[in-house]
Amino acid sequence: MKAKRPAADRLLADLGNGRVSLDAAVEVLLDAAQDGLPDATLDHDRARRCGAGEVVFGQGKTPAQAVAIARRLAAKNGRVLVTRADAAMRQALAAAFDGSVPVAVNESARTVRVGRPPRPRGRVAVVAAGTADLPVADEAVETLIALGSRVDRIADVGVAGIHRLAARMPLLRRARVVVVAAGMEGALPSVVQGLLDRPVIAVPTSVGYGAHFRGLASLLAMLNACAAGITVVNIDNGFGAGYAAHLVNVTGEKAR
Amino acid sequence: MKAKRPAADRLLADLGNGRVSLDAAVEVLLDAAQDGLPDATLDHDRARRCGAGEVVFGQGKTPAQAVAIARRLAAKNGRVLVTRADAAMRQALAAAFDGSVPVAVNESARTVRVGRPPRPRGRVAVVAAGTADLPVADEAVETLIALGSRVDRIADVGVAGIHRLAARMPLLRRARVVVVAAGMEGALPSVVQGLLDRPVIAVPTSVGYGAHFRGLASLLAMLNACAAGITVVNIDNGFGAGYAAHLVNVTGEKAR
Amino acid sequence: MKAKRPAADRLLADLGNGRVSLDAAVEVLLDAAQDGLPDATLDHDRARRCGAGEVVFGQGKTPAQAVAIARRLAAKNGRVLVTRADAAMRQALAAAFDGSVPVAVNESARTVRVGRPPRPRGRVAVVAAGTADLPVADEAVETLIALGSRVDRIADVGVAGIHRLAARMPLLRRARVVVVAAGMEGALPSVVQGLLDRPVIAVPTSVGYGAHFRGLASLLAMLNACAAGITVVNIDNGFGAGYAAHLVNVTGEKAR
Amino acid sequence: MKAKRPAADRLLADLGNGRVSLDAAVEVLLDAAQDGLPDATLDHDRARRCGAGEVVFGQGKTPAQAVAIARRLAAKNGRVLVTRADAAMRQALAAAFDGSVPVAVNESARTVRVGRPPRPRGRVAVVAAGTADLPVADEAVETLIALGSRVDRIADVGVAGIHRLAARMPLLRRARVVVVAAGMEGALPSVVQGLLDRPVIAVPTSVGYGAHFRGLASLLAMLNACAAGITVVNIDNGFGAGYAAHLVNVTGEKAR
Amino acid sequence: MKAKRPAADRLLADLGNGRVSLDAAVEVLLDAAQDGLPDATLDHDRARRCGAGEVVFGQGKTPAQAVAIARRLAAKNGRVLVTRADAAMRQALAAAFDGSVPVAVNESARTVRVGRPPRPRGRVAVVAAGTADLPVADEAVETLIALGSRVDRIADVGVAGIHRLAARMPLLRRARVVVVAAGMEGALPSVVQGLLDRPVIAVPTSVGYGAHFRGLASLLAMLNACAAGITVVNIDNGFGAGYAAHLVNVTGEKAR
Amino acid sequence: MKAKRPAADRLLADLGNGRVSLDAAVEVLLDAAQDGLPDATLDHDRARRCGAGEVVFGQGKTPAQAVAIARRLAAKNGRVLVTRADAAMRQALAAAFDGSVPVAVNESARTVRVGRPPRPRGRVAVVAAGTADLPVADEAVETLIALGSRVDRIADVGVAGIHRLAARMPLLRRARVVVVAAGMEGALPSVVQGLLDRPVIAVPTSVGYGAHFRGLASLLAMLNACAAGITVVNIDNGFGAGYAAHLVNVTGEKAR
Amino acid sequence: MKAKRPAADRLLADLGNGRVSLDAAVEVLLDAAQDGLPDATLDHDRARRCGAGEVVFGQGKTPAQAVAIARRLAAKNGRVLVTRADAAMRQALAAAFDGSVPVAVNESARTVRVGRPPRPRGRVAVVAAGTADLPVADEAVETLIALGSRVDRIADVGVAGIHRLAARMPLLRRARVVVVAAGMEGALPSVVQGLLDRPVIAVPTSVGYGAHFRGLASLLAMLNACAAGITVVNIDNGFGAGYAAHLVNVTGEKAR
Amino acid sequence: MKAKRPAADRLLADLGNGRVSLDAAVEVLLDAAQDGLPDATLDHDRARRCGAGEVVFGQGKTPAQAVAIARRLAAKNGRVLVTRADAAMRQALAAAFDGSVPVAVNESARTVRVGRPPRPRGRVAVVAAGTADLPVADEAVETLIALGSRVDRIADVGVAGIHRLAARMPLLRRARVVVVAAGMEGALPSVVQGLLDRPVIAVPTSVGYGAHFRGLASLLAMLNACAAGITVVNIDNGFGAGYAAHLVNVTGEKAR
Repeated sequence: MKAKRPAADRLLADLGNGRVSLDAAVEVLLDAAQDGLPDATLDHDRARRCGAGEVVFGQGKTPAQAVAIARRLAAKNGRVLVTRADAAMRQALAAAFDGSVPVAVNESARTVRVGRPPRPRGRVAVVAAGTADLPVADEAVETLIALGSRVDRIADVGVAGIHRLAARMPLLRRARVVVVAAGMEGALPSVVQGLLDRPVIAVPTSVGYGAHFRGLASLLAMLNACAAGITVVNIDNGFGAGYAAHLVNVTGEKAR
Repeated sequence: MKAKRPAADRLLADLGNGRVSLDAAVEVLLDAAQDGLPDATLDHDRARRCGAGEVVFGQGKTPAQAVAIARRLAAKNGRVLVTRADAAMRQALAAAFDGSVPVAVNESARTVRVGRPPRPRGRVAVVAAGTADLPVADEAVETLIALGSRVDRIADVGVAGIHRLAARMPLLRRARVVVVAAGMEGALPSVVQGLLDRPVIAVPTSVGYGAHFRGLASLLAMLNACAAGITVVNIDNGFGAGYAAHLVNVTGEKAR
Repeated sequence: MKAKRPAADRLLADLGNGRVSLDAAVEVLLDAAQDGLPDATLDHDRARRCGAGEVVFGQGKTPAQAVAIARRLAAKNGRVLVTRADAAMRQALAAAFDGSVPVAVNESARTVRVGRPPRPRGRVAVVAAGTADLPVADEAVETLIALGSRVDRIADVGVAGIHRLAARMPLLRRARVVVVAAGMEGALPSVVQGLLDRPVIAVPTSVGYGAHFRGLASLLAMLNACAAGITVVNIDNGFGAGYAAHLVNVTGEKAR
Repeated sequence: MKAKRPAADRLLADLGNGRVSLDAAVEVLLDAAQDGLPDATLDHDRARRCGAGEVVFGQGKTPAQAVAIARRLAAKNGRVLVTRADAAMRQALAAAFDGSVPVAVNESARTVRVGRPPRPRGRVAVVAAGTADLPVADEAVETLIALGSRVDRIADVGVAGIHRLAARMPLLRRARVVVVAAGMEGALPSVVQGLLDRPVIAVPTSVGYGAHFRGLASLLAMLNACAAGITVVNIDNGFGAGYAAHLVNVTGEKAR
Repeated sequence: MKAKRPAADRLLADLGNGRVSLDAAVEVLLDAAQDGLPDATLDHDRARRCGAGEVVFGQGKTPAQAVAIARRLAAKNGRVLVTRADAAMRQALAAAFDGSVPVAVNESARTVRVGRPPRPRGRVAVVAAGTADLPVADEAVETLIALGSRVDRIADVGVAGIHRLAARMPLLRRARVVVVAAGMEGALPSVVQGLLDRPVIAVPTSVGYGAHFRGLASLLAMLNACAAGITVVNIDNGFGAGYAAHLVNVTGEKAR
Repeated sequence: MKAKRPAADRLLADLGNGRVSLDAAVEVLLDAAQDGLPDATLDHDRARRCGAGEVVFGQGKTPAQAVAIARRLAAKNGRVLVTRADAAMRQALAAAFDGSVPVAVNESARTVRVGRPPRPRGRVAVVAAGTADLPVADEAVETLIALGSRVDRIADVGVAGIHRLAARMPLLRRARVVVVAAGMEGALPSVVQGLLDRPVIAVPTSVGYGAHFRGLASLLAMLNACAAGITVVNIDNGFGAGYAAHLVNVTGEKAR
Repeated sequence: MKAKRPAADRLLADLGNGRVSLDAAVEVLLDAAQDGLPDATLDHDRARRCGAGEVVFGQGKTPAQAVAIARRLAAKNGRVLVTRADAAMRQALAAAFDGSVPVAVNESARTVRVGRPPRPRGRVAVVAAGTADLPVADEAVETLIALGSRVDRIADVGVAGIHRLAARMPLLRRARVVVVAAGMEGALPSVVQGLLDRPVIAVPTSVGYGAHFRGLASLLAMLNACAAGITVVNIDNGFGAGYAAHLVNVTGEKAR
Repeated sequence: MKAKRPAADRLLADLGNGRVSLDAAVEVLLDAAQDGLPDATLDHDRARRCGAGEVVFGQGKTPAQAVAIARRLAAKNGRVLVTRADAAMRQALAAAFDGSVPVAVNESARTVRVGRPPRPRGRVAVVAAGTADLPVADEAVETLIALGSRVDRIADVGVAGIHRLAARMPLLRRARVVVVAAGMEGALPSVVQGLLDRPVIAVPTSVGYGAHFRGLASLLAMLNACAAGITVVNIDNGFGAGYAAHLVNVTGEKAR
């Protein structure tokens, strides 16, 4: 996805002879600079929450809307990821693309991936503290696959049974970056980061009740983690964690 | 400290012949029932936050006031514990009792113990996650000593270096109940409880900054701990944790 | 439930001749140490919130899932407790085990106990401030029974009618530890602890409205209780209170 | 303090012949209606927080400013109450009025009453849960005296020693209305209201620490009190509680 | 409803000859003192939120339960008030008592009054800021009627049209105490109290959205009201406001 | 809508000869002053949230109620705006006015405008950060049209793609005042105000999840905006933003 | 302060012949567009909180720093406003500019205005609810003067004495926009907007205590104001309110 | 800093012949695995907040303590970083190491770096939104230098003047990862991430007032950022952001 520099010459000429105003030129140049980004997918993905781009935020959309948007994006880019898709939307998307392109539906993550994902690069580990945290972790997993990262998925290694984590250390040490999703007291990222020298991205989940305040307890715990190296995303934001982890993972690729 | 039942007969007679009213009798009888508790120190201690009893809450009092109250209590009970005593108060108390009775001043815990403590019974472990949590842990330690529990004090075993905790497991397994003081993400009680089948009393501390909100982050983490068996006290309440731990420890004694 | 030490010799040999790596050995040894805990039920129970163990957290599971998990656990341990089970799940569990083993369904507590509980030991009192707090208190009661504690259940003794509490004092004094569930202003634990020298475990409930903020008012009141000896669990966490109370109660047993 | 109706005739004439505008007339009439209130002190007192009236809110003022305002008000009304006066302001006020009129300085309440208070009417009880709550209770006491209510002051009857309250029941039953100031878990108003059929005005105090959040815990507890009849004022607002209690007490007078 | 003093003589005799224990005697005497309250309805009403008494808190009960409780109370006291009764419960209650006793169903207040209310005494004004606040105001009105206060109901006089309030001043000045229910910015109590020398009881309502936080905005505004004399109850607690207002109103009666 | 001054003479006469009381006169005069406002629509609109006026707050009303109120207002004023109207209410209103007057139904804004709007004056821009913010922006648009402002609607120019905003600068510079609706991080108003010297009215929306806390995050961001000139309304309050923007826009008109 | 269009021709030439890169051109053009704003002061003022521009945010700066910045700005623009200047900074600034240019020091507002302000245009009213709110109101007044608006300042017209407001209505009606600063219950903007058809900008102040939470109570009240037309700025942000009011006032000017 | 594997053979022998217990072996092995980490500095740094390691958290320590710890660490590792060092501590450290090793004192960041930092690798950009955010940004810069990352520091490019950012885009595009520190509305990370395909680590600062709630507003804004790829650390945690950024930057190095 290389940058396509605008025809600057023509613009300059038009600006010079008054055919375009200064304001219009600014706008064109800005667009040009934007298009010049090395990774054009970025722009589309950025639009996910606004309803367009290679990633579609399914929540609040009808199945028909999601299908329409996904078709357009798949036609343009060859692939598309839909997140926060409920059962009806998942079914509609699976039916819409049936036969034409590969479609991967993930019930737990509530995602639908259309098209063949990029060749997996590098290595990212995604850890869920408890089984109830799996949907959030799986959203991160699917996002990573869709963006082109190789992923290891590790489940059920919560802090109240710390020996379970020890068994997975070899796997964790192989990753360039680790995503940890945890609800309740949200302590797992601290323990994981304490054993690793790789960046840990923590995702607080809303799993809990009472004084959990729908994820606030986990969020605060992670922001106050004693182990340096942890950064945090919004509650239940598996997509955001996966996206950020992919950027870190790719940093390793680019440096070559 | 056995119960001293009131002279019920005289009261009944007085009530019968009208010398005391029904209301007055109720009050006397209530007092009597109260005095009948097996552990008379309890009543005084309960008054700690109100400024009287065998335990004096030093905060908000002048050194002179603290000395006066402590003298009265020591005279009555042979011993007294002063908590939240600043440097001036600690100095004043040390001077006041100098020579007459044993005085133990704890700079970290900000406590002064006057008089010989009871013979230590049972076994309680008090754990501090970080060095900054030590003052709170030490307040629990001093409270336990003053009440008559045997204490093991364990420092600096935070979750971001979990192997440090493993080394202390034999000590922890020897305790009837464990007090864990932790600030920041407040995750240590979960890990400790996950390795023990004894009650764990968690004390959130105000050690942290920013989104820690003066102890709120630690408090919420502990209330949402995944490991069953944990109970929680107020932020920085080392006294309360020590007091509750003593009651649990003594439960073991009483059951004999 | 004695500890079953691993075959340390074989491990050492394998490690010595390179058949197992150092990392793998660490893990095996950790597991071994874990298995060595005197009370093996602990480990399973700890897993409750993650969907496995002798206690199943029913919330968020389908009746079929709960039945499947309960069957496996009952087969392994001879008994199982399911908490937060709605009507459909209770019915499914009752049907699944019908005839084969004793099944105790508690509508109020929303629990199902499968199998004969352990012989009751010691004595724990569970107090509900109002009738609306009973479901939370009953979850504590069922947990205590399932774990093997003898329980006295006391209902409707709220602070706005303090004489009702006086009538229950003899019963309360017989307990080794008292669980108090209260919503609204959450004041009952303070009053109970003020009359007792036993540990009180306070459970704030979400019973209230408006400025109660779904249990926050009760929780804060209990954390700030004037009477020393009170410890607190999460809002509506009857299970956690019962579990902690059992550990305290058993402390009395063990000390013998 | 009877109402002084304005010279309505002159106003009407002026309005009729155009000497005053309609807008001006509205204003004059409104002022007139206001002056018509049976208790003229009310209007001035209402202005307390704005810096004028028979009650002066000392906080944020210099001693000199407080003296100047108090002099003007005392000259006009014969008496004045200054609240939230620090040591310097109390000293300045005592010196300013020395010899000329009676001056009552209350160190605990941080108030200065100038002039002879009205003849005490009715009966109001003011209760402090702990000694630390006394300053707030005393502000209520001084306000009640300044406004003309007879007051009984009761200290140190917190819920964690409920028998202490029983002894004061006869006194409480004599009052027309009871003010209860309490910090920590704020439970005393519930217990008091549960024993009385008189209105209880609850004042949460900021006495506490950690999860007390500077009075929030007490405030929420009081707003959620189980016992009907309780109303609540702002944290540490002894003045407001005393003022409202006086209005209730006087209701009894007026009904005659 | 006069007090029925217990047979103190018999108790004393039994206590003297050991037929009753000291503990049991305390309890009997406490009950006796309680029964001795001048207004026996108080005790029952206090139990409202616990499911019994002359006032039934309908929320969380089935229509059948509400009918059963109401029948028992009506049989005992001749009257009963049910609050927070949904449509089904109101219909069931109306049907249950049809023909036998007067039944007053208030759709807005969600209340059912059974039996002839006491002869109305004194005078209380209940003000609703907006039409959406009427259900809360009406709950206060019904409570006042049920308890025996004479009520004036005033609707739709919000602060954003202050002239509407002026028209009702004569009515407000006739009341011994005023209840004001307001949502949104909760400013009406301040304005009303500013024009009156009677106690004002403010009820914040949950009417609002967004940064209203389900009543928090109104609650805080009322607690911080500039006008002295205002006291506050919980959000949407029309019952509590009416109850407290009745106690104030009756204070006027009693003083005669 | 010119002011209709009351018959002041007759009132004065009546007041003079005692036919009306002073209190009654005050009220009449106040009403008169109120009627004297240059823009009579104001008074009715102000009543919107109370259920009457030219603007009807549909939420919490039945379709039948909304139709009845709208009919009355349309008959009186020739036009009416209904906000927060769900599908059923929109359908009922469309049917009720069908054929007789123009009816504009806006599905996104959930509004129904009845009658021909005033001739559009001035120029206001309404900007939505994302497509999910459009319903709130559209409520502002419909309010502005109903009140008589000319509106430019700009969608999908969020901060995470800042070049999209540049293209709309000419349009924004033409407006007298700009309304910006944004959820998520709520940053768009800062950027827009940074490029403009016109007043910006920011509307936080509840679009977001997790730590967004239903609009709180956007609200706080806007209140703390670095760019001077921004003012803020309640979360999701498109009506309020449109109303305030109209007042600003009209200020430009009036100044002529 | 007219816009100075950049030498576009030269830039285009340079871009054409490769002397400047596309990125550099974008930047230059953006700067140009920015300079093209009709009111160049805007750009500098916007920088106030960053430490530069015609308005200096004094808080966190030393007197020497403030003097240095103010000298540079005054030299460039002929005038400068310093806000949040403590006594030392005010003295330093007064000394620095003494004699050379007019200097206006406002103790209440904590501001220093250097240089002759622009000729006052239009009319803005600034209202303070209580005397304690005056510093915030005065910051708005000084900002308005410095920017060139004519100001009427109105003090002490709080809602708990609503007749005081009536007297100022003629003055308020003359303003194009009204700024209202209020602490405590923050109700004044609602009442003012209810009487006016001009935009009202509300400034919550931190004047209050206890459940005021440093301005939160006032802020929430204003955001939930029933009267349409109110917009809100941050707590104690007199500068921001004055700035926004000036933009509205100038809208009136521009429209001519 | 290569891993030094423990003498596993000897341990195994000792374990085999019973000289060490299983528990002790577990601990030794754990320590060994820990030492085996490729980057030994990690372990020490992790201990920063506990008072030991190559990074010293100066807050709460005396200058003498900081000097002692720093000396020990410098002796061991050749370098040390002290953060949150006040003026006295900075002076003491500068004096202690004077002449022996290079010492870099940063007044803004409140840090002292002792010893020659590692050779800078890769490239990290650190951006401060306003000058007041510089201390936090500078703490990140110093941490990055101390750990061995090459840093570009960019100041004063806040969103309310978006063209300033455009000029720095070439610099930002050169970085492998960007740290953005911002107070107030915290919007800068969204804008920066919207223009970049590199990971952005956002640091909310406590710069603000009123409804900023000491950093909460910035924190929430960043957690809700619309642009994917942003992760967040605690308020004012420049150290944590720098640490995490270094881990990401090094990921690029390692991948080679």
